[in-house]
Amino acid sequence: MKPVYQFGVFEAEFQGVAEGNPFVEREIFAQFSFKDQIKCIRGFYDGDGKYIIRFMPMQAGEYSYHVYGTFSDRTFSGSFTALPHQPENHGIAGVCNETHFAYSDGTPCMPFGTTCYVWHLQNPELYEETLKTLKNSPFRKIRFCVFPKHYIYNFRDPACFPFEGEPMDASILTEENFNYYNEDHSGNHFDFMRFCPEYFHIVEKAICDLEALGIEADLILFHPYDRWGFSDMSKEDDLRYIRYVIARFSAFHNVWWSMANEYDLMPQKTGLWREYGEFVRAEDPYGHLRSIHNCFTVYNHSEDWITHVSFQRCDLYRTAEETDSLIETYHKPVCLDEIAYEGNLPLGWGNISPEEMTRRFWEGALRGGWGGHSETYYHENNIIFWSHGGKLEGGSPARIAFLKEILESFDYNSLALRKDRMWDELRAETSDQSVILFYHSFMRPIYREYFLPENRTYQAEIYDTFGMTKEIIPGCSGKTRLALPGKEYIAVLFRQTNA
Amino acid sequence: MKPVYQFGVFEAEFQGVAEGNPFVEREIFAQFSFKDQIKCIRGFYDGDGKYIIRFMPMQAGEYSYHVYGTFSDRTFSGSFTALPHQPENHGIAGVCNETHFAYSDGTPCMPFGTTCYVWHLQNPELYEETLKTLKNSPFRKIRFCVFPKHYIYNFRDPACFPFEGEPMDASILTEENFNYYNEDHSGNHFDFMRFCPEYFHIVEKAICDLEALGIEADLILFHPYDRWGFSDMSKEDDLRYIRYVIARFSAFHNVWWSMANEYDLMPQKTGLWREYGEFVRAEDPYGHLRSIHNCFTVYNHSEDWITHVSFQRCDLYRTAEETDSLIETYHKPVCLDEIAYEGNLPLGWGNISPEEMTRRFWEGALRGGWGGHSETYYHENNIIFWSHGGKLEGGSPARIAFLKEILESFDYNSLALRKDRMWDELRAETSDQSVILFYHSFMRPIYREYFLPENRTYQAEIYDTFGMTKEIIPGCSGKTRLALPGKEYIAVLFRQTNA
Repeated sequence: MKPVYQFGVFEAEFQGVAEGNPFVEREIFAQFSFKDQIKCIRGFYDGDGKYIIRFMPMQAGEYSYHVYGTFSDRTFSGSFTALPHQPENHGIAGVCNETHFAYSDGTPCMPFGTTCYVWHLQNPELYEETLKTLKNSPFRKIRFCVFPKHYIYNFRDPACFPFEGEPMDASILTEENFNYYNEDHSGNHFDFMRFCPEYFHIVEKAICDLEALGIEADLILFHPYDRWGFSDMSKEDDLRYIRYVIARFSAFHNVWWSMANEYDLMPQKTGLWREYGEFVRAEDPYGHLRSIHNCFTVYNHSEDWITHVSFQRCDLYRTAEETDSLIETYHKPVCLDEIAYEGNLPLGWGNISPEEMTRRFWEGALRGGWGGHSETYYHENNIIFWSHGGKLEGGSPARIAFLKEILESFDYNSLALRKDRMWDELRAETSDQSVILFYHSFMRPIYREYFLPENRTYQAEIYDTFGMTKEIIPGCSGKTRLALPGKEYIAVLFRQTNA
Repeated sequence: MKPVYQFGVFEAEFQGVAEGNPFVEREIFAQFSFKDQIKCIRGFYDGDGKYIIRFMPMQAGEYSYHVYGTFSDRTFSGSFTALPHQPENHGIAGVCNETHFAYSDGTPCMPFGTTCYVWHLQNPELYEETLKTLKNSPFRKIRFCVFPKHYIYNFRDPACFPFEGEPMDASILTEENFNYYNEDHSGNHFDFMRFCPEYFHIVEKAICDLEALGIEADLILFHPYDRWGFSDMSKEDDLRYIRYVIARFSAFHNVWWSMANEYDLMPQKTGLWREYGEFVRAEDPYGHLRSIHNCFTVYNHSEDWITHVSFQRCDLYRTAEETDSLIETYHKPVCLDEIAYEGNLPLGWGNISPEEMTRRFWEGALRGGWGGHSETYYHENNIIFWSHGGKLEGGSPARIAFLKEILESFDYNSLALRKDRMWDELRAETSDQSVILFYHSFMRPIYREYFLPENRTYQAEIYDTFGMTKEIIPGCSGKTRLALPGKEYIAVLFRQTNA
């Protein structure tokens, strides 16, 4: 038996009733006891009479459990020891303060992320290539969909489907007619009451493979890019699906729940999101992060089931610049989950330059938010990173890694924006003012005056954030005039040297 | 005697009372008759007992006049013939429709402009160099101040002052203390009741020299960058000054009145602007264009004395992008009189790249507005184009010339924005759809589909607006897919070829 670790997964399998429709007709639960704490967990049916209980011990120590439910006439009991967590597993990401995230063990979490909507549904070679790419990237969060995706450049069927049944004929799809099938799902015959475990194995392998790389899996539960009818199920079907997904995936510490991608493109769900979000919160035994992503209109993030803001830019020009006002409005950390993608697609959300992508990450970082990347370079074979994964070819990932390295060189979780002079300056400081960071964005000062505390000495580190160079000027204090390169994308970090 | 032309200047000089203070105690008027039309004109005192009547005939033909007032015991009469206007003089610029300007004779006016606040107060060599620069530039409007300017990089006194008196000692000014003298004007001793004609000769030479180049003089009547107290006169002094300026300059067809630069930095004038603006409208016999320029808050341009919007961007990120909403709000043409300047100064309004400056002009043009340029490259000698004039060294003027040339190749005064797909497309069309113009700004599509009328044939002209290249693709109709360079700043103009 594999050892069980704190923040890892304990899994047990039980044979039970296979007749009828166990997905609907049967239930399996487990009660886990740790010292005087008791937690009740829902298990799930995995086909072929097989029922699974999956559990994440949040503490190290002795656990006992009792398994029961309509899946079997029998009940089961057992116990195991959760070993102290492995060094690279810090637990579940959670909200640390109004701007920052931290893991269960207190380690800061820096969720600079990317998006590959259905990378897990691609062929094995592409899948492995994506993992390799992610491993070598600065991204430690990836947004992807539980359901398959129907969209331009995305007409192929996945190898299998989340429900039993038959899809429409995908060979008839063209760039001209594909939008029609967003509305008309009549060519499909799926039984939303029968999950297809094989499909969910694919999703959970993806979650586990990401876990091994230390990457958060920001799972999108619903999305509108759909020809199969998965976006248009009844409320009863939706809730059964949510419950199944949570029972299967919530024991993986790296899971985040994104209720929707572009919720506002799914008018059929209007008025349901709050109920669904509260349902997720109630069903999830661990309290994974919960968000909802917009297209044109930011969701009302005051609703208290929402842990953080998942923001798609609503304006072509002001993007990451909205971060601080979102924080002021909602008092929740902000993930900039779509601030356009680096690439050259015909569509406006997918064709910004690496310079502009990097600039948006920096703007976001100083304002207290977490940039989101993806890449949308056109290829004749329709393999585009943002949906399918594969290799990265753009210029921004290296610069985002450079930004991360700079942030990791100090206590970035205490960095806060100062709003005195926002008309031409972004200034953020750590709470002890040992680091004072300026970002000049597209401005190109040839020199500039900085106002530092009088009684301390700093070294200035002048970063060309796109050129990835660093120049050090020691001995700065009080009013400090620095010569600068007179080009775009310069950051100046003052680091206290006389602490 | 010099010939007098329609839209030119008729000028006559009269000797009168020199004793006392003629600026305050004496008046001179003239009544001009043309056919059955009569116009009353105020003249002005030019010192040494000399009174001047200056008049712009708006028609060609026979004029007679009668001069009277307290300047003399005598009255004077005379007549002259106004010859038809010279070909390069089209009269006064006025509002043509909600977005465009035209001259008195109906010629479209394209007021792409620049700013050199006090170029006219510099030494003769620099002054001549500025004129040469402007002549060879694409700019046909220049914003400058009647009063001298006190600001960083602007500490030198002009050769003379608009009023009799003595200025404070300018040699004490430093970058550290200069701001103090914006408030404390006590070191100056000016008599605001006695104009200094020599100073106004300098301003009017500048207006005339611009006129010879076909350039509009957008005269700023008040501004806050002042150590002499000219921004802080009494209302009575202000109105006397306005009346004097109008009497002197309004006969020059190329004059525009800008009530203020950054009106909202002059709290001492709060509540007075409407009265002053209406006073200008009442005093000006010709109806020159009237505007008011903001710093943080756009003035309420609904007030009907205002002919057009003079807009300084209020946000670092959305600049020329506000054009169409300003037009929708105020139904008046928009001059983008400050959308930051190309340069490398430390201050955020003065350090954008030539690419970004050019982009703002294009964004403005498709949205129905008129870009405003200036250049703020730092020089050790503090000669910076935006204040002093001199040479241009930036990259945007050539690209603005390229934009002008493209606009002038069709009926740009009928160009109107279409708002169907603003989330990733700027599309403007002439009223007859013979030209359909797209601008892709910072987006970088590698191809794109355009939807043109089915029953017409167009040639596509693909412009690299910064690289200044043009590629022609003939035979476009209906749905048209074009390969594009996949880089920033591309415009595509479809020009009908089967008219």
